[in-house]
Amino acid sequence: MEERKIRVGITHGDINGVGYEVILKAFSDPTMLELCTPIIYGSPKVAAYHRKAMDIQTTFSIVNSRADIQDGRVNILNCTEDELKVELTKPTAEAGKAALSALEKALQDYREGVFDVLVTAPINKHTIQSDTFHFPGHTEYIEERVGKGEKALMILLKDDFRVALVTGHIPVSEISRTLTKELIMEKMAIFHRSLKQDFGIDSPRIAVLSLNPHAGDEGLIGTEEQIVIIPAMQEMMAKGVLCFGPYPADGFMGSGNYAHFDGILAMYHDQGLAPFKALAMDEGVNFTAGLPIVRTSPAHGTAYDIAGQGIASEDSFRQAIYVALDVFRNRQIEREINARPLRKQYYEKRDDSDKLKLDTVEE
Amino acid sequence: MEERKIRVGITHGDINGVGYEVILKAFSDPTMLELCTPIIYGSPKVAAYHRKAMDIQTTFSIVNSRADIQDGRVNILNCTEDELKVELTKPTAEAGKAALSALEKALQDYREGVFDVLVTAPINKHTIQSDTFHFPGHTEYIEERVGKGEKALMILLKDDFRVALVTGHIPVSEISRTLTKELIMEKMAIFHRSLKQDFGIDSPRIAVLSLNPHAGDEGLIGTEEQIVIIPAMQEMMAKGVLCFGPYPADGFMGSGNYAHFDGILAMYHDQGLAPFKALAMDEGVNFTAGLPIVRTSPAHGTAYDIAGQGIASEDSFRQAIYVALDVFRNRQIEREINARPLRKQYYEKRDDSDKLKLDTVEE
Repeated sequence: MEERKIRVGITHGDINGVGYEVILKAFSDPTMLELCTPIIYGSPKVAAYHRKAMDIQTTFSIVNSRADIQDGRVNILNCTEDELKVELTKPTAEAGKAALSALEKALQDYREGVFDVLVTAPINKHTIQSDTFHFPGHTEYIEERVGKGEKALMILLKDDFRVALVTGHIPVSEISRTLTKELIMEKMAIFHRSLKQDFGIDSPRIAVLSLNPHAGDEGLIGTEEQIVIIPAMQEMMAKGVLCFGPYPADGFMGSGNYAHFDGILAMYHDQGLAPFKALAMDEGVNFTAGLPIVRTSPAHGTAYDIAGQGIASEDSFRQAIYVALDVFRNRQIEREINARPLRKQYYEKRDDSDKLKLDTVEE
Repeated sequence: MEERKIRVGITHGDINGVGYEVILKAFSDPTMLELCTPIIYGSPKVAAYHRKAMDIQTTFSIVNSRADIQDGRVNILNCTEDELKVELTKPTAEAGKAALSALEKALQDYREGVFDVLVTAPINKHTIQSDTFHFPGHTEYIEERVGKGEKALMILLKDDFRVALVTGHIPVSEISRTLTKELIMEKMAIFHRSLKQDFGIDSPRIAVLSLNPHAGDEGLIGTEEQIVIIPAMQEMMAKGVLCFGPYPADGFMGSGNYAHFDGILAMYHDQGLAPFKALAMDEGVNFTAGLPIVRTSPAHGTAYDIAGQGIASEDSFRQAIYVALDVFRNRQIEREINARPLRKQYYEKRDDSDKLKLDTVEE
């Protein structure tokens, strides 16, 4: 495997929130630079402002072009207007514009191979909206810009606890009608592929949560389990995906049963995220699965309420970097394993259609 | 205050689950008998079977009539057929019948003043159904039998973390249309009264969760927050109930924000119970608020999967007893405080309608 430092593109997000604080704190430990080479897409002036305001010791180097990027230091690339007003704790149009221009510049550089993985600091979803950004969040924007037609799946994870959602930012009143067999199968297929390719799990075990309380209690509390969820699971099982359930969310989360699975597929936003965040907020990471780009972010938001106080924890952001590095390496390993596969030497006895012919060479 | 032991009626629940195990283990510590006097409504033979099978050291005394009940020992009253077959880990009609007869006998004794508070071991909601029991669970049955027309509210709690639900065992597809301003106000009023009277909190602070992700994101993800939830909160605020929100469930649970409130009102089952059980399963207690009877139960179910193995934790059941005792005492204190109130000596200056007249006696 190639032995060079993995380059991590980092977008600064909302300059009035805790973004710079967690970025700089994450790199206050010099050993981080032995793991990777960061390139911050943002504003050196704003970074200096936050560093001084909170007395963070991290040093960084301003780079004006990609040729200046060096291993062993925190590179920062200016993507914003020269004069930028920081108004800590406040959503401002200026901060939204600065967040977007950093994101656009980073995605352009990603396409040109400047860095390997992307870690995004939190944005404000309202102030960032513009002619070129009309998405509910990072995930959808990145899916369109560098997704190459693939569908994204948001996975929240902490260590081996991974939660993905079938439906996302929709009203509760629309969950039932949005939930189809096809949608569940599509999301489960992406989840399954990601668990294999991105997390190196050979035969991932996926737990499926029920839509209704008590898994519908044999039809007394809703019928989607029988009509939609179980048929989707049966079809995926037939395709070789190991899925189990559907489990009632409360008992599943309460019993610690989640520890026995590699991934948990929740039917809707709060069902997956409320228990996930309750259990794993501080070190939770948001990973965008399903796309060619490896992109992660911390599970928290801009946290305006504590911005500039120096009390934000960088744990989640640091974990986001670790996950991005791990996924990037796992994908490399998978590619290398599959680059020159050994010819199949073993066939299932029951399958007579494919004979082992030792005298031919497979293409 | 009267200085006698509080009498705790305990129903044995499903004899094939972990009920007897957690009951007997809870009383294996003799100091429990200094706190209260238990009366188990069940079967001495089945209790002996479980005790022997799992080598639990608790001793109990069989009582044939209420006159035999004594402080300082674990009293057990036979409520079942003499020959009763225990089939550990299995739902059986016989076990359902035995659970129901214990419950019926206990409620009859409660009405006649034999005991003060009720703690129920878990039942199987399917096998207990009969001509006299056609309810989704304990709560509804108890509400009808001894509720005296009051409405019950299920509160899940662990220490100061208390979660109540506006809607309960209904399909997700029906949540939105079931959620009305009136229903939210009704549940909040019961919650508020219970926090004051049952938990001794003078001015309880109630957090209200939003229905939709991100609290509807200003109408982008659902409108119930604006149309139903916030108007209900405003009306309750006007009545002097301190309620806050509506908060998105995931961030609220993840940030630890719940620790700042005396009670959390969730809009539906999984929203409240999935994070609650994730955080507090092992010591969680289910308290039926709003009724004259004080009734609690452990947050877990029959746990067939581990029945008879001796590995069930009795923590939740013991906490259920503690909560029942605390609520009973708090209600006594409240009654005594309010029995002979002092005449009001202070009036708000702005309120001129009511003059302080020291020469008259209020009725």
